[in-house]
Amino acid sequence: MKDLVGSAPACDADAFRHEAQAFIDWAANYLTQSETLPVLAAVQPGAVRAQLPTAAPLYSESLEQLIADLDRIIVPALTHWQSPNFYAYFPANHSVPSIMGELVSAVLGVQGMLWVTSPACTELETHLLDWLVDLCGLPARFKSTGTGGGVLQDSASSAVLCALLAARERASDGQANESGCTQQLVAYGSSHAHSSLDKAVMIAGLGRRNLRKIPVDHALAMDASALARQIDLDRAAGLTPAFVCATLGTTSTLAFDPLPAIGDLCRRAGLWLHVDAALAGSAAVCPEYQALLAGLEAADSYCFNPHKWLLTNFDCSCLFVADRRSLTDALSITPEYLRNAATDTGSVTDYRDWQIPLGRRFRALKLWFVIRRYGVAGLQAHIREHVALTQRFAALVDADPRFEIVAPVALNLVCFRYRGDNQRNQQLLEALNSSGALYLSHTLLGTQYVLRFCVGQPRTTSAHIMSAWATIARLASGLERAGSPAR
Amino acid sequence: MKDLVGSAPACDADAFRHEAQAFIDWAANYLTQSETLPVLAAVQPGAVRAQLPTAAPLYSESLEQLIADLDRIIVPALTHWQSPNFYAYFPANHSVPSIMGELVSAVLGVQGMLWVTSPACTELETHLLDWLVDLCGLPARFKSTGTGGGVLQDSASSAVLCALLAARERASDGQANESGCTQQLVAYGSSHAHSSLDKAVMIAGLGRRNLRKIPVDHALAMDASALARQIDLDRAAGLTPAFVCATLGTTSTLAFDPLPAIGDLCRRAGLWLHVDAALAGSAAVCPEYQALLAGLEAADSYCFNPHKWLLTNFDCSCLFVADRRSLTDALSITPEYLRNAATDTGSVTDYRDWQIPLGRRFRALKLWFVIRRYGVAGLQAHIREHVALTQRFAALVDADPRFEIVAPVALNLVCFRYRGDNQRNQQLLEALNSSGALYLSHTLLGTQYVLRFCVGQPRTTSAHIMSAWATIARLASGLERAGSPAR
Repeated sequence: MKDLVGSAPACDADAFRHEAQAFIDWAANYLTQSETLPVLAAVQPGAVRAQLPTAAPLYSESLEQLIADLDRIIVPALTHWQSPNFYAYFPANHSVPSIMGELVSAVLGVQGMLWVTSPACTELETHLLDWLVDLCGLPARFKSTGTGGGVLQDSASSAVLCALLAARERASDGQANESGCTQQLVAYGSSHAHSSLDKAVMIAGLGRRNLRKIPVDHALAMDASALARQIDLDRAAGLTPAFVCATLGTTSTLAFDPLPAIGDLCRRAGLWLHVDAALAGSAAVCPEYQALLAGLEAADSYCFNPHKWLLTNFDCSCLFVADRRSLTDALSITPEYLRNAATDTGSVTDYRDWQIPLGRRFRALKLWFVIRRYGVAGLQAHIREHVALTQRFAALVDADPRFEIVAPVALNLVCFRYRGDNQRNQQLLEALNSSGALYLSHTLLGTQYVLRFCVGQPRTTSAHIMSAWATIARLASGLERAGSPAR
Repeated sequence: MKDLVGSAPACDADAFRHEAQAFIDWAANYLTQSETLPVLAAVQPGAVRAQLPTAAPLYSESLEQLIADLDRIIVPALTHWQSPNFYAYFPANHSVPSIMGELVSAVLGVQGMLWVTSPACTELETHLLDWLVDLCGLPARFKSTGTGGGVLQDSASSAVLCALLAARERASDGQANESGCTQQLVAYGSSHAHSSLDKAVMIAGLGRRNLRKIPVDHALAMDASALARQIDLDRAAGLTPAFVCATLGTTSTLAFDPLPAIGDLCRRAGLWLHVDAALAGSAAVCPEYQALLAGLEAADSYCFNPHKWLLTNFDCSCLFVADRRSLTDALSITPEYLRNAATDTGSVTDYRDWQIPLGRRFRALKLWFVIRRYGVAGLQAHIREHVALTQRFAALVDADPRFEIVAPVALNLVCFRYRGDNQRNQQLLEALNSSGALYLSHTLLGTQYVLRFCVGQPRTTSAHIMSAWATIARLASGLERAGSPAR
């Protein structure tokens, strides 16, 4: 091929070395400078496209041209998620070992849809997820050595959808896959459950009106007695309660739903219990935070995302199920062209039957690299450091009478607001984010506009926290002096 | 952090350089030696896990230990998808520029769920998919500059699911998302459509019994008149025909459904037409193969996978829609914590509303790298070379009276069999794959067990084809001498 593709690189070791060397230099430079870049991209819609040619190049362009455009067009229009000054949403952090895992996965380029299409891809994944059960103090029923097992999904959204599909099949005695979702199955989550639950309920054909948003208590956690009443009401109305999504660490405030009470209910009522701990689950690598998962033994499925807070590149979302058959019953199809001896014996795991897509990358590599290069102690230190930094930030907020903390501070999130109206808080957020010095996001609690400060980057230090707070305090003062603009 | 995590690498430029250098050496070595490794992993179920410790390491392990285990445990248990001797399934090929795109994406670690969370991630993607519309001669209605647009999905499976969900909403006047999939919507595909259609129909709650597998003609393409009859029958039975998936290049034999006739039908009957050209779509970078897509202007959605045959690492599946509103109507949800000014103005694309998951990697980078480094001419040369190699292989099969070609040879796939019973063909396949010299897969055509030989690796040359054929001919002779074993 080499002679046919002009100056495009051959797919051999020499070309690889040459290109990789150039991109390592580029990446090292990015890692060094990214801290100084505005965190939130300050570009207008269409600004990137305006710099791109209207058609694909006819002939190969040089490595130098490509890298120049990466710096000129792409980097200025990025929001720098790996900046130590990124405090928005939940983090999606990475680490050097994880990047190396992605690199090796790309070089190998294997497909893990079936065991036989790369046994190591499947077995390493199953094994690592068993490691995580022990490491995080999860119930043994999630282990592959019993009836359960774990699988890597791209996201907690896909995980909750897979869990819901398994619940749908169980609640319909396998009729939903066969005849469609004709029964009125009902799903439950708190009013603070993640929007991926709404999306899953829509996709799976249950219908949004069959999703109950259960009220939350003063701590913004699900009111379990309201859940019990709603289940009874729905049953009395002839509907079929089928699925509860409990959240350990909600997106708005890191509130923890009362899992023991919810689990009791689900067990007695025969509902599938899915537990979404997308962010908070990573904290369970520390024994002192495993109590946050109390009650998890009642769950049918559990999800947390190492790609959020455990130094592993997106995508890496762990889904555990207590009964793997329930998942594969819902998702399995075997056309002839995928049949093979190993699958036919039933002695292997084919992960395509545990997920929505057929194809799958070798995602377990990056998780393996992270766990081995950090070690349990290193992962624990990482979590503890962020919790300590968060406490430090909370203390700074607390000490300034102009601000108030508006939800319990759990793990690595502080929800706070300026003591003023919503408009003033929104102005403050916009001023902060457009300063480029840091990036925060917001939520609504009741009618209150609230700022969220989430610590999650491996390079964030005490100095960054102090600097972030100084910026917040300074811009708040600036807004005070400017006064509230006319509406 | 550095002091807290033992010897785990810091997330800085120096650590990155050090680790990257080690993995570049490892990867260059892998690329060099992979051609000589047995293509199909020759390990027993459990062999990988047996070599892994039962628990995560307490302390950081060295880079050297990790790389040694990669070589000792992982590589021998891989099926080498990037080997030039890989001819199984459809390819999932890669290239040096694509690997570099994955590396840069991992280093940047941005989330592209919203435009605002990294504008370049969204705009580059939209722009590249417009490039591909022109480059592949696709209908202009798929461009973002009109009412349509493209999006990168992880796989053709997810793409057909998204298309089906859009069709479901359209056919139910938006009631399915709201009230559940209570109507009897019917979906159609040929009996050779990919199994992802079955899976999508199950997931979306239509029910498998509402999927019609339309018979195929002598060329193994959908019989359009049978489709017309079935739609009429279903309508007469009070059901609602809603969705047709036509395949351009089926998985078993690369058969092309008669798109113009199917498109006419769909237009007249008001059905959503999705076109799946997962493998074959890449060929359309060559003008001489664009005629294979004739009739595509009637499609509501279209999918092809650069991660199969266009040198771009999995995952990179392009989904185009003629009316992007139909897609976002089906998949959009905006909780408060994702609200932002850019989204509120409606002037930007938020790709989370075009896909199942919320989060998304910067996948467009690798596609950009591939298109720019190869150029259109390089991509065309790549496709033409593989088609020529396939023709060469077909000629070799054709010249050997012991073998027969059992389906029209299209693009890069030859379906052939030994003139003997199914058992003999199965034995031949097993002998070939366990030889380690190459990897083929199979399919069933009617009751016939058929071998599939698909050319798709960038490093496959004429010499590999000759060698593959020599192995096939030699092992067939060996089986003849051994005679048929007792059953």
